[in-house]
Amino acid sequence: MNENTRDAASLWHTPLLDTINSPADLRKLPVEMLPQVCEEIRRFLIRTLAGNPGHFASSMGAVELTVALHYVFNTPYDRLVWDVGHQAYGHKLLTGRREAFAEGNRRMGGISGFPNPAESEYDTFSAGHASNSISAALGMAVAAGLRQDSPRRNVVAVIGDASISGGLAFEGINNAANTPNNLLIVLNDNDMSIDRNVGSLNSYLAHLTTSKAYNDIRYKTFRVLKGMRIVGENGKGSILRFNNSLKSLISHQQNLFEGLNIRYMGPFDGHDVITLVRVFRDIRNMDGPRILHLRTVKGKGFAPAEKDPAQWHAPGKFDPVTGEREADRPSSAEKPLKYQDVFGNTLLELAQTDPRIVAVTAAMPSGTSISTMQKAIPDRVFDVGISEGHAVTFAGGLAKEGLKPVVGIYSSFLQRAYDHIIHDVALQGLPVVFAIDRAGLVGEDGATHHGVNDLAYMRTVPGMVVASPSDEHLLRCLLATALSDDNHGPFAIRYPRGSGRLVDWKCPLETIEIGKARCLRPGTQCAVLSLGPLAYETGCALDALADEGFSVAHYDMTFLKPLDEELLRALAESGVPVLTVEDGTLNGGLGSAVAEWFADNGYTGVRLRRLGLPDKFVPQGTPAQLYELCGLDAGAIAAAVRNHISET
Amino acid sequence: MNENTRDAASLWHTPLLDTINSPADLRKLPVEMLPQVCEEIRRFLIRTLAGNPGHFASSMGAVELTVALHYVFNTPYDRLVWDVGHQAYGHKLLTGRREAFAEGNRRMGGISGFPNPAESEYDTFSAGHASNSISAALGMAVAAGLRQDSPRRNVVAVIGDASISGGLAFEGINNAANTPNNLLIVLNDNDMSIDRNVGSLNSYLAHLTTSKAYNDIRYKTFRVLKGMRIVGENGKGSILRFNNSLKSLISHQQNLFEGLNIRYMGPFDGHDVITLVRVFRDIRNMDGPRILHLRTVKGKGFAPAEKDPAQWHAPGKFDPVTGEREADRPSSAEKPLKYQDVFGNTLLELAQTDPRIVAVTAAMPSGTSISTMQKAIPDRVFDVGISEGHAVTFAGGLAKEGLKPVVGIYSSFLQRAYDHIIHDVALQGLPVVFAIDRAGLVGEDGATHHGVNDLAYMRTVPGMVVASPSDEHLLRCLLATALSDDNHGPFAIRYPRGSGRLVDWKCPLETIEIGKARCLRPGTQCAVLSLGPLAYETGCALDALADEGFSVAHYDMTFLKPLDEELLRALAESGVPVLTVEDGTLNGGLGSAVAEWFADNGYTGVRLRRLGLPDKFVPQGTPAQLYELCGLDAGAIAAAVRNHISET
Repeated sequence: MNENTRDAASLWHTPLLDTINSPADLRKLPVEMLPQVCEEIRRFLIRTLAGNPGHFASSMGAVELTVALHYVFNTPYDRLVWDVGHQAYGHKLLTGRREAFAEGNRRMGGISGFPNPAESEYDTFSAGHASNSISAALGMAVAAGLRQDSPRRNVVAVIGDASISGGLAFEGINNAANTPNNLLIVLNDNDMSIDRNVGSLNSYLAHLTTSKAYNDIRYKTFRVLKGMRIVGENGKGSILRFNNSLKSLISHQQNLFEGLNIRYMGPFDGHDVITLVRVFRDIRNMDGPRILHLRTVKGKGFAPAEKDPAQWHAPGKFDPVTGEREADRPSSAEKPLKYQDVFGNTLLELAQTDPRIVAVTAAMPSGTSISTMQKAIPDRVFDVGISEGHAVTFAGGLAKEGLKPVVGIYSSFLQRAYDHIIHDVALQGLPVVFAIDRAGLVGEDGATHHGVNDLAYMRTVPGMVVASPSDEHLLRCLLATALSDDNHGPFAIRYPRGSGRLVDWKCPLETIEIGKARCLRPGTQCAVLSLGPLAYETGCALDALADEGFSVAHYDMTFLKPLDEELLRALAESGVPVLTVEDGTLNGGLGSAVAEWFADNGYTGVRLRRLGLPDKFVPQGTPAQLYELCGLDAGAIAAAVRNHISET
Repeated sequence: MNENTRDAASLWHTPLLDTINSPADLRKLPVEMLPQVCEEIRRFLIRTLAGNPGHFASSMGAVELTVALHYVFNTPYDRLVWDVGHQAYGHKLLTGRREAFAEGNRRMGGISGFPNPAESEYDTFSAGHASNSISAALGMAVAAGLRQDSPRRNVVAVIGDASISGGLAFEGINNAANTPNNLLIVLNDNDMSIDRNVGSLNSYLAHLTTSKAYNDIRYKTFRVLKGMRIVGENGKGSILRFNNSLKSLISHQQNLFEGLNIRYMGPFDGHDVITLVRVFRDIRNMDGPRILHLRTVKGKGFAPAEKDPAQWHAPGKFDPVTGEREADRPSSAEKPLKYQDVFGNTLLELAQTDPRIVAVTAAMPSGTSISTMQKAIPDRVFDVGISEGHAVTFAGGLAKEGLKPVVGIYSSFLQRAYDHIIHDVALQGLPVVFAIDRAGLVGEDGATHHGVNDLAYMRTVPGMVVASPSDEHLLRCLLATALSDDNHGPFAIRYPRGSGRLVDWKCPLETIEIGKARCLRPGTQCAVLSLGPLAYETGCALDALADEGFSVAHYDMTFLKPLDEELLRALAESGVPVLTVEDGTLNGGLGSAVAEWFADNGYTGVRLRRLGLPDKFVPQGTPAQLYELCGLDAGAIAAAVRNHISET
């Protein structure tokens, strides 16, 4: 079996995997058959993901460690905690979800693209936001110890080299070393998060290799130091530490895990499943916390993905044999850009005229299209790795010194930096611009990735301007406004995943008035106030209502904070019923702000109806399906307006 | 001068300090006079803080490093960034704020107890929430490099050994090593945060000492390894790393800072100001990021504080000569307990009857009174150090395994864990109980410590019960309810700093109905809905109004989420005007929830008035002063109700 080119027929040949309905089945196989299981998992992943897109390269790189873990550990009694979960597809295939995966991975009503405790007892903890596995697994390990579970319950956290740079992972390690527990941390090190990895921890991992002359040196140095009674010969841990220390001495690098008092083992080849089984068996019953460092290759076993793992993180549809990606096929029709690209291009345009503009991304230069500026002006772009808190506080420091930082982070990940936004930016009135991507319902990534709280939590921050453009032109103008010399405080612009609708996105870069809504159409029977891209669905709804003879006004608020009080006052005085539409939670967003304003200003009689996202976790699906589910498609908006008018 | 006992007169003898109106004055002094400056700063701190309480022990321990930093570095051109800021009183005294400090430290209209950029150009960044200094200072250092500031601008972050365990500090260090910058990180290691320190990083710091035979061993090993051409002789950095590696080898400890590729120097005695000046001069112009490790003693120079630094973190008033603390004086009158103690005692009571109850604190066992349970049942209490994110995710892991974790964190610090609450607890519906202390306006600690956003941001979390008791009995009953077997999801209870009003706090531990308000008094002209401890001020206001002949109903909501919809419906149908009172931001809290509910349920005609905290950062002062400032004292509430009735 040539693992890097497979014909179409071989991809459907998975006889061993077809018999594995749970890890118990896997454990019945002799260890020599595990490489074949691994190959079959890869075939399954390739043939499935070619047609139903998902996260590809991470799971391909984690096949052997997944098989070895389920083979050695007694899951689900032993707990396996995956970090982020991009890499957990193999785990899903081995735990009774082959068909569900093939039919409905990331689809509405199907299974989640991430580990999901509601879906399987093998998914012990929710994943999606990086760096939480160690803390969560430590909780489980400590609980198992407290309860004195018998037989001993093992807990394993699997974390990538990108996730381990998050502050939460460090807090977890720092605590793991200090509490009685038997936690095993598997460091899946592919030297590659979605984009290139950053930070000194990463360069540390890259250098953690054994010198060629290592064994010889070790022997001689050991003799010298033993003669001086500095090291003894007894005790495995002591020898282990001696080896690590010596490695540090030779490489001029220190082992930071040993520094944190965690027993460190590795690095081992993460694609040698037979060795992995041996190593896991050796260390399974060791006491105390420990880290096993595995070297893996992202995209392993599929040549195009190994060659360009960033593109193949989530490649979209592709040809399972040739590896040609649908996204790479030339397209004749000119299509609208993604919002993120309109942002990325505009950022660069503005940065080219103002040397004070700098950009910060937390491991997502491609995902946010900050990569556009990064390529052109690398000195003024800072990729800080997975560390959203640091990204914001660091930007505060940059702004304090007179620069104009733009922090580009996905909406749901920015929740990690809520406190930092308040205290390290807003409290000091610093002009940091938050470019909040993936706002609203993001679709297939599901509950962990929907950006539904940003409007509500950003509105609690004093002095923060909170804006959401209804189209690409407004996104450009908002960015220009936020970065103009007239703006002196924090400014948040949130915009959705995916494409807008304007082919001609390149409007002039004009500043706009902060806190001013735009009237998109006049009307007398009802006034609809929308915020953000749902302006489009709202427009469609009002078109339909116009055809029915209704006269409904539509205002694009653009700003949640400050509110356009002049507009609200005029509406209240006119007595027209008002309906708000937003792609954020109903608990505290636009509709709440409008309700508050009417109450606070004594406009008791205004009839207000609020459309937005419910107080629930919304599952995966296409954005269109999900907005329909939440009553925010054009039909539902039209029905709501119709009802609101008729009830008045 | 005997530094540990001083007579009253000597405390007022500060002739040198009296002439220092800025660091420029300090720099004119010969270095030999600096010990005298240090002694005088201590005298000033003792005599001032004895009468006007503040954070004492941290600043006493940082006197020498403060003097040496301002002596060697060209502040304010060079940037000094203090972490947390408990230790920055000496800095305030040296930067032109002696009189302001003596007259108004932590007082309304006076100066902040923390570094505050609005107050002085020497205060470069806001402090109060731990672990932000490295990220902020890195931003400043990178900006200075980008702008090629000339002369070179040095940036120094001063961080304690407790703060450095926070994930944000790790993210900062990890990034500092990888960006061109000349940041100096001073690690002020007193082996003591407010309570004892935890985590492996801490035990690492404790062991980082130089062996007695170190120099001899170093010489011999160096010769051996040099003979083997493993180490060379040229290059300061290389020698430094060799030394650190050797230290690791001997101590069986690895230097984690070197592991992160940050040049590490130390530890040095942080109370030898002459040496500190020499060391700072030596390293001031070094290139690249570096960490200087200083050993200090919390409370240094005042015997009672050195003996019990935890008690002397914020000792309250004390006798400046004998060190007798007012808090230790026997009191004849029986006084109400602090809310935190009612919580701590109740937690222990409940834990004694249910072995599944465990508690988690982030470096605040005393501050949250989780110490009560910690003393009685140490195995079931986890102090995770300053790491709020980990505390919450770890609790999620504990809950996943069937335990009932109670996470006790101050309201404003819990903002650090907003994302963790959503994804690692609520998304999985885990029954974690959040005991949110210091909710509302906390008083003298000011803007960084007010707990004003919790109601609004907790309300955005699906499935979260959000409660705030109006008195100590309800706090007990809420905790019993949250920990009863009938509760199956996340449950937040937020309560204020300081004492309640009930001497007899020990009511029976009964569960209460979730989402049910209590009628405290009936009335017909207006219904006041209060949430939390402002029920007391509201009651006083309504007493006064009753005397004037008004008939006003008062409901203690107790729950923000779920709302008592039955009550709201009854009020709406009755047509009575409604007024809400809460000690949280008006952007998204109780008043918003009530406004939303009336709108969503078609009760257009209800007259609603909302009282709460404004969309501003509230400064320091006594809680009474601040609630008055915000229009939430009894008089203001009465006036608001009177107006609301008259306008109806």
